[in-house]
Amino acid sequence: MKSLFKTDEWQIIEEGFHPDINREAESVFAIGNGYMGQRANMEEKYSGDSLQGSYLAGIYYPDKTKVGWWKVGYPEYFAKVPNAPNWTGIGVQIDNTEIDLAKLRVENFRRVLNMKEGYLSREFTVLPGKGKRVHVQTFRFLSMAEPDLGIIRYKVSPLNFNATISFTPFINSDVRNEDTNFGEKFWKDVHSHSEDGFAFITARTLRTNFVATFAFTFELRKNGKRISPASEPLSRKSYVANRIQVSLKEGDELEIIKYVNVLSSLYLPADQHVAETRKRLGHAAGRGFGRLFSSHVKEWTRIWGTSDVEIEGDPAAQQGIRFNIFHLNQTYTGKDERLNIGPKGFTGEKYGGSTYWDTEAFVLPFFLKTAPMKVSRNLLLYRYKHLGKSIENARKLGFRGGAALYPMVTMNGEECHNEWEITFEEIHRNGAIAFAIFNYIRHTGDFGYMKSYGLEVLIALSRFWSQRVSFSENLGKFVILGVTGPNEYENNVNNNWYTNTIAAWTLSYTIENIGILRKKDPSSLSRIFSKTGFREGKEIRRWKEIIELMHFPRDEKRKIFLQQDGFLDKELKPASSIPAGQRPINQHWSWDRILRSCYIKQADVLQGIYFFEDRFDTDTIKRNFDFYEPITVHESSLSACIHSILAARTGNIGKAYELYLRTARLDLDDYNREVADGLHITSMAGTWLAIVEGFAGMRISGENIILKPLIPVKWKSYTFRARFRDNLFKVKVTRKWFEIGNQSSTLLKFLYNGSRYEVPGRSEVRVNLQ
Amino acid sequence: MKSLFKTDEWQIIEEGFHPDINREAESVFAIGNGYMGQRANMEEKYSGDSLQGSYLAGIYYPDKTKVGWWKVGYPEYFAKVPNAPNWTGIGVQIDNTEIDLAKLRVENFRRVLNMKEGYLSREFTVLPGKGKRVHVQTFRFLSMAEPDLGIIRYKVSPLNFNATISFTPFINSDVRNEDTNFGEKFWKDVHSHSEDGFAFITARTLRTNFVATFAFTFELRKNGKRISPASEPLSRKSYVANRIQVSLKEGDELEIIKYVNVLSSLYLPADQHVAETRKRLGHAAGRGFGRLFSSHVKEWTRIWGTSDVEIEGDPAAQQGIRFNIFHLNQTYTGKDERLNIGPKGFTGEKYGGSTYWDTEAFVLPFFLKTAPMKVSRNLLLYRYKHLGKSIENARKLGFRGGAALYPMVTMNGEECHNEWEITFEEIHRNGAIAFAIFNYIRHTGDFGYMKSYGLEVLIALSRFWSQRVSFSENLGKFVILGVTGPNEYENNVNNNWYTNTIAAWTLSYTIENIGILRKKDPSSLSRIFSKTGFREGKEIRRWKEIIELMHFPRDEKRKIFLQQDGFLDKELKPASSIPAGQRPINQHWSWDRILRSCYIKQADVLQGIYFFEDRFDTDTIKRNFDFYEPITVHESSLSACIHSILAARTGNIGKAYELYLRTARLDLDDYNREVADGLHITSMAGTWLAIVEGFAGMRISGENIILKPLIPVKWKSYTFRARFRDNLFKVKVTRKWFEIGNQSSTLLKFLYNGSRYEVPGRSEVRVNLQ
Repeated sequence: MKSLFKTDEWQIIEEGFHPDINREAESVFAIGNGYMGQRANMEEKYSGDSLQGSYLAGIYYPDKTKVGWWKVGYPEYFAKVPNAPNWTGIGVQIDNTEIDLAKLRVENFRRVLNMKEGYLSREFTVLPGKGKRVHVQTFRFLSMAEPDLGIIRYKVSPLNFNATISFTPFINSDVRNEDTNFGEKFWKDVHSHSEDGFAFITARTLRTNFVATFAFTFELRKNGKRISPASEPLSRKSYVANRIQVSLKEGDELEIIKYVNVLSSLYLPADQHVAETRKRLGHAAGRGFGRLFSSHVKEWTRIWGTSDVEIEGDPAAQQGIRFNIFHLNQTYTGKDERLNIGPKGFTGEKYGGSTYWDTEAFVLPFFLKTAPMKVSRNLLLYRYKHLGKSIENARKLGFRGGAALYPMVTMNGEECHNEWEITFEEIHRNGAIAFAIFNYIRHTGDFGYMKSYGLEVLIALSRFWSQRVSFSENLGKFVILGVTGPNEYENNVNNNWYTNTIAAWTLSYTIENIGILRKKDPSSLSRIFSKTGFREGKEIRRWKEIIELMHFPRDEKRKIFLQQDGFLDKELKPASSIPAGQRPINQHWSWDRILRSCYIKQADVLQGIYFFEDRFDTDTIKRNFDFYEPITVHESSLSACIHSILAARTGNIGKAYELYLRTARLDLDDYNREVADGLHITSMAGTWLAIVEGFAGMRISGENIILKPLIPVKWKSYTFRARFRDNLFKVKVTRKWFEIGNQSSTLLKFLYNGSRYEVPGRSEVRVNLQ
Repeated sequence: MKSLFKTDEWQIIEEGFHPDINREAESVFAIGNGYMGQRANMEEKYSGDSLQGSYLAGIYYPDKTKVGWWKVGYPEYFAKVPNAPNWTGIGVQIDNTEIDLAKLRVENFRRVLNMKEGYLSREFTVLPGKGKRVHVQTFRFLSMAEPDLGIIRYKVSPLNFNATISFTPFINSDVRNEDTNFGEKFWKDVHSHSEDGFAFITARTLRTNFVATFAFTFELRKNGKRISPASEPLSRKSYVANRIQVSLKEGDELEIIKYVNVLSSLYLPADQHVAETRKRLGHAAGRGFGRLFSSHVKEWTRIWGTSDVEIEGDPAAQQGIRFNIFHLNQTYTGKDERLNIGPKGFTGEKYGGSTYWDTEAFVLPFFLKTAPMKVSRNLLLYRYKHLGKSIENARKLGFRGGAALYPMVTMNGEECHNEWEITFEEIHRNGAIAFAIFNYIRHTGDFGYMKSYGLEVLIALSRFWSQRVSFSENLGKFVILGVTGPNEYENNVNNNWYTNTIAAWTLSYTIENIGILRKKDPSSLSRIFSKTGFREGKEIRRWKEIIELMHFPRDEKRKIFLQQDGFLDKELKPASSIPAGQRPINQHWSWDRILRSCYIKQADVLQGIYFFEDRFDTDTIKRNFDFYEPITVHESSLSACIHSILAARTGNIGKAYELYLRTARLDLDDYNREVADGLHITSMAGTWLAIVEGFAGMRISGENIILKPLIPVKWKSYTFRARFRDNLFKVKVTRKWFEIGNQSSTLLKFLYNGSRYEVPGRSEVRVNLQ
């Protein structure tokens, strides 16, 4: 589908209607505002292939586990974001012909996602019969300023005939998830009502009893002038609507603006919904489309102001990076610590909208550098609040004494996944959660988080590792047997280097912070020890033994870290030797063949080197990169960005750029042939990191940032915004120099090529590239 | 439930009614005749907990695969034996009160499985109200002489009142499997009919379109005298019946004999069923209960004559071994090469009634030694006929050039299982299929099988191994990565010793037989080479390289074979250190914990030593046994028998007996708390092997058998019958001597303690134990 969307720096543009990629387009053109989001389903009826999808943040349904062979410890349920009642619908009839792009001839179709201002629009001419031509324009946004509001403007103009137009704005709660395990329905209507100019459905999720109310009002204009014809209220099971009919002359234009309000019991008790939704809709309609849109655009302007990346000389890369930044900000706004970021955000059902380690490893670093501290803090609090359930989860698997295993996939803290090699064995996720605390504090300097929340989590994680290792008499070392690393193309391996590394690091970091807190705030430490029942002497002694004697597999000949014990017993052949028709291998090879091959799904040893880069010299990084990159197939969206950053780290800008391209337009160009299911929201953060940490080489060293900019050959310049502690700054890199503009009032310090630079508030420093 | 069934040498007896273990009893008292079989469901209505189960051999339904996470190569369906229309039902009313043991008071209940004559009977007094006492006797058998006939005799006698009795014999096709994946029904009625004295339902399995007809007629006796009251034909959806009402005086006895005929389209085209079933029922009723039962008993007498084991001094062991022999012979009679032996036989739904490697590794050796050659040959032909599908199966997984991977679980040759670590990785099953050919030929001397069928299979299996190994530059050896051995408590391991051993052996055995055939019958060899497209020079060269350089993990210090690479990196603790409340570990531990423990589910290295015992000296066997036995938890029913045989092999009769006890009464005493699901039919063969190959030490060496009898301390003597080539013989072992009685007319040769003995036809030789 590469050629289907036009390259444009601020917009995604589909020209001509392509029903064969409608599902893909529905994903790519999805819009959201953190509170809710939806695929780019059409407002008018569409009987062609489509994945109807509209989602509300934080609302989930526990779908009964589907598994072939049950194992002790499997969860009963997989929490899924349910497809919510559809509020975008507007039935459109022209002289009794229903507009349905799957059935009528369509011309000059153009669908646009405007990322600068955050709206979705369509324009087309449809032919409802006998030479009749009707021009249609649609425009939709989910307000970033008032997130419970969604606004749709729909314009129809019969170009060459007089017509009777009817609009039927509706709410439909007869919706299902395509991926239910046993075909269950997730929502049940509580009540519904329709009157002239107002209608709503209140629905409740089964089992979890979340309640949401979907209501609308509307206004009509004929040739730009407000008209108020009577509407006919319609109501049937799971459906409320208003029907309006207006006669137009050739060339007239009829416009409906549908104001939608969506209330969720997460924020407002259900018994207040009906009164409140009337009020909010009245208020919204009173302000009108123009003012609502302005305040929405203002929010986007603010966001772009602190997170835009500009690239000169490479429009496709420019479009790609903005696409990623745009979707990340649509998905998560960081206002509520009960929310998180599902791998597909609001763009599809896959992965159930649940939280993975993607958040800590990829998305958090993006928000740490682009958003106010509170946003990242809420991501950490999300996990802190799940600590109790994670301890319970570990207990189910036989761990004791306050050890926590965070779930691989979760909505409310309970594990949802049910593949033993992932659920029970992909335990490195615990490491990412520890690392996130470290990362948050080094970015923000908010050590207060450690004493209020962080240390409790770290103790529980360390306790897990302390029980999960075993001592091998044979090796004289502590080993971690039976794990799956980030590279899920290996299962149940022993001593995954990444896992062992992050486990030992977690133990060290916990001990270190106990030490710091002892000095800084002994009473907080006592409180934490008491709360966690911490037996300091005994527990720390064990941790230190493990740190000292942890086994890290390596190959002395090649001087590389080994992904796991026995890795070199495989046949080592470069990924380039796999015939193109067999890629991606996970869609062509049986699982055993993948497992016994040397091919790596995603950065694993290199992920560890990325996290703990300052432990390794450039030669070590290079040796490991040169060994692992050729056998890595990057069939996870989370892979190429890490490789790109490390390629840049070793000065290989060509390779870094090649790998960057795989991530930047992954969804726009549908590399993995799966964009129909939704976008790779979490990996989008990796793309941004590939520019900022990769090309620009931004690192943190204590109170300073370090820069080491490189620039891809094709680019004239690139500019990004970032935050560090109190500073917000802009970095522009050209082929000859780079410039840091300090946009805050406090002094910004950075290191470049061994020298230290200071950028006073509200000023710039330019440095020539060496 | 240990104490619930009385110990008796020929019978299983339940005294007193125990609704809490009704499901268990339904399994234990199950009857069958190879053509069909059924759980011991009650004839009259029973509204308590019960697993209704009646099954027809060779009829299966492809149930849609249920899996959480799909992987390339998974099968679409799991073939299951469908619960067939219920033909055992007889509604019984006494003065309008329905007899239902879950609702009425029951006294003097006694359920008996008579193994000598192969029938199931019940006797009880039921109280249908107000002091009324009714005596009931039931008697049921599935004819071993005419396997499409099932006969039920049901007697009722009101002891202390005059009563109106009604009998309603019926067929009910509204049946389901409890373990359907998506609640689908497996059968659909084709037609049904009921008239006075005759009724039938013809039903068809959905998707697979097997057709079966279930028909009955009946006769009535009052106080032993034939009566012929009119019956009322009943018919409704999925139900046909006849209703008969008879008035009895206090002390009278009313008896119904229900003659049932079950026809299957496997044996008779569906359009002939109705006419044929009328004919067969007429014939059966004409012969009558007594003669039908006599010819049935005659068959059992014949079976026991060649397969009974007598044990003096240990009634529980005696009952146990007969229970096993009885069920094996009920399940498989070896008449049809389309049939095989499901792990639960006809006693439950678990494992879908499908075929596992259990057949080749455990059941075949039993039938080789107890049944005519044709029976075993049919078991081999079953796999031969699936060769094409096994090649197809291997192709799905990326293998080429005629390589075959036999399915882990199958009904018609297609793979049914869908756990990657089993389906794709438990490939040692291919080894068992090769070994079965070897085993069959050494027992029967039927080398003709090799040229007609065996070699084709061996070539396809060898081709599989040839592609499945990879060469490790690191080790300078061929390795087999990513497998699951017989010990399923390890998944995705490298170089499972058992798998590597049987793989290399298969290659050698194939090469050896190509050599033999070249000498014996070069034209057959040419035909096979041509049929298989065999490139002799190239393929054999590769096989020889693999045989020469195969990696066999071992520990030089302990001088043992290692279950797999890295096994010694585990914490080694004896299974006896696991708290009793945590056994079986697979019901208490999460899968990762099981995997990283050292605990072994079932014989693995020891299974290999058992198969290839003559390669190893006694010290080697002992060292490996002493290392593995303490860490083996025997949570597979196929484990303890192998350990028992090897314990006996090393002279450890105490341990051998201890392990024997675990297998012999596994189901009778419900060791694994799962007999409610059905019996462990396939492992029953292992119990017999533990006596014959274990205690008696029977082996084959070329044209001779070897005996090396031991006797458990508790036993006074034991006697078994066995076959070898043309000979049928009986061996009695006492504490002082053993005796071989040659029951055939040809000379029998055997070796004992280095000496060679000859037993002329129809005579005995007695040897003192040394």
